[in-house]
Amino acid sequence: MADYTLYYWPLPFRGQFVRAVLSHIGASWHEAEVEAVAGQRAADPQAQLVPHMGPPLLIDHVTKAHLSQMPAILAYLGAKHGLLPGDPVLDAMSHKIVADANDVLYEMTRYNGAQLWTEPAWKEFKPRLCRWMELFEETGRRHGLTTRSGFMLGTSEPGIADIVAATLWGTMTAKFVQLRPMLDRHAPSIAGLSDRIAALPAQTELRKRSADAYGDEWCGGQIEASLRAVLGPAD
Amino acid sequence: MADYTLYYWPLPFRGQFVRAVLSHIGASWHEAEVEAVAGQRAADPQAQLVPHMGPPLLIDHVTKAHLSQMPAILAYLGAKHGLLPGDPVLDAMSHKIVADANDVLYEMTRYNGAQLWTEPAWKEFKPRLCRWMELFEETGRRHGLTTRSGFMLGTSEPGIADIVAATLWGTMTAKFVQLRPMLDRHAPSIAGLSDRIAALPAQTELRKRSADAYGDEWCGGQIEASLRAVLGPAD
Repeated sequence: MADYTLYYWPLPFRGQFVRAVLSHIGASWHEAEVEAVAGQRAADPQAQLVPHMGPPLLIDHVTKAHLSQMPAILAYLGAKHGLLPGDPVLDAMSHKIVADANDVLYEMTRYNGAQLWTEPAWKEFKPRLCRWMELFEETGRRHGLTTRSGFMLGTSEPGIADIVAATLWGTMTAKFVQLRPMLDRHAPSIAGLSDRIAALPAQTELRKRSADAYGDEWCGGQIEASLRAVLGPAD
Repeated sequence: MADYTLYYWPLPFRGQFVRAVLSHIGASWHEAEVEAVAGQRAADPQAQLVPHMGPPLLIDHVTKAHLSQMPAILAYLGAKHGLLPGDPVLDAMSHKIVADANDVLYEMTRYNGAQLWTEPAWKEFKPRLCRWMELFEETGRRHGLTTRSGFMLGTSEPGIADIVAATLWGTMTAKFVQLRPMLDRHAPSIAGLSDRIAALPAQTELRKRSADAYGDEWCGGQIEASLRAVLGPAD
């Protein structure tokens, strides 16, 4: 029996943040079948494991807890497994970084695909994406990320903030390599952090498994196709 | 000297969640001038009080903390002022309810005004808004909100989950009274909870002050105008 069951689409995107944390703590988890994910999502609220609009959804088989909403799942795992700094302000900063990451996911997909990318829309958005990168960079700079080995909130071990920043920017720029030069320019410390987290054995192993399962996909669907179209070839 | 300074637009919307919690704990706060809010938002990340894409932004003058992102600010205030249940799963459920509320704000404004409301778009969205209400109702039902006096997560005193649910649904249906029958039908317990929280003296006082300052506005701007257009007259 696995420690956890994760309900998420067979894609990285929001689910990958939960997978990255579960991998980091060495937890075992079962991935629910896509039919079960879709079934939960479409079920009456009364019939859902936890009332939710969309995945991810996590079952903790030890505590029998059912949770939804990526930020809430990460807050739960962070508290349970000691991945929050343990200081009121820095804990809140961790939650802020998760909320920022979630906003970037919304914006990169034009709110989960509410609109598709077009050349003019992408051109208009690009400075904002650069600014998101700069906001992460500056957050890390204030807390000690300027050294090559530092973590985002000045902690001695990677925590939720680090895993989230690395999963956001590292995964995005691995799947869309056209964006990596932008990250290197606007958030060099975050790029370095992403590489260091990505090089941890548990993350390397997760990335390999995810690539086998999901290929090059990130958010999937028409919205990913429209994003690839405006980004052009990867060379 | 106030306990806190809040940077937010002169509107309810996301800022009202922070104001409602500050009111509930009896904290004093200063509202930054709109020029200061806009100035912070536009500043270089290096010059911002805390690196952020948009308000709300809160300064805690006692701890000298600077925070952004509504969910992170509420997590901070909830932990500091004993407004979280203090149980790992219920704390995470509180964060989930905040994340759900934040998603409803995004959807009611078509991601902060990325698109305006049209008749067809609103018609398509309405069942989803009903479902959001049902998701809140079912969350409360599972935890003990079925009694007239219960709180959303079965706690003996209102916490972040209650204040957030009441601020979301109560404020929305007070500003757009056309939506109140929908709330009464799809989330009767949440409607009752919203009324009970709204009747607390601190919330009554906040609502009066907010109405004096912001009038009937909710999210403001063209997006609010387009929402009022599709909702039709309030009768």
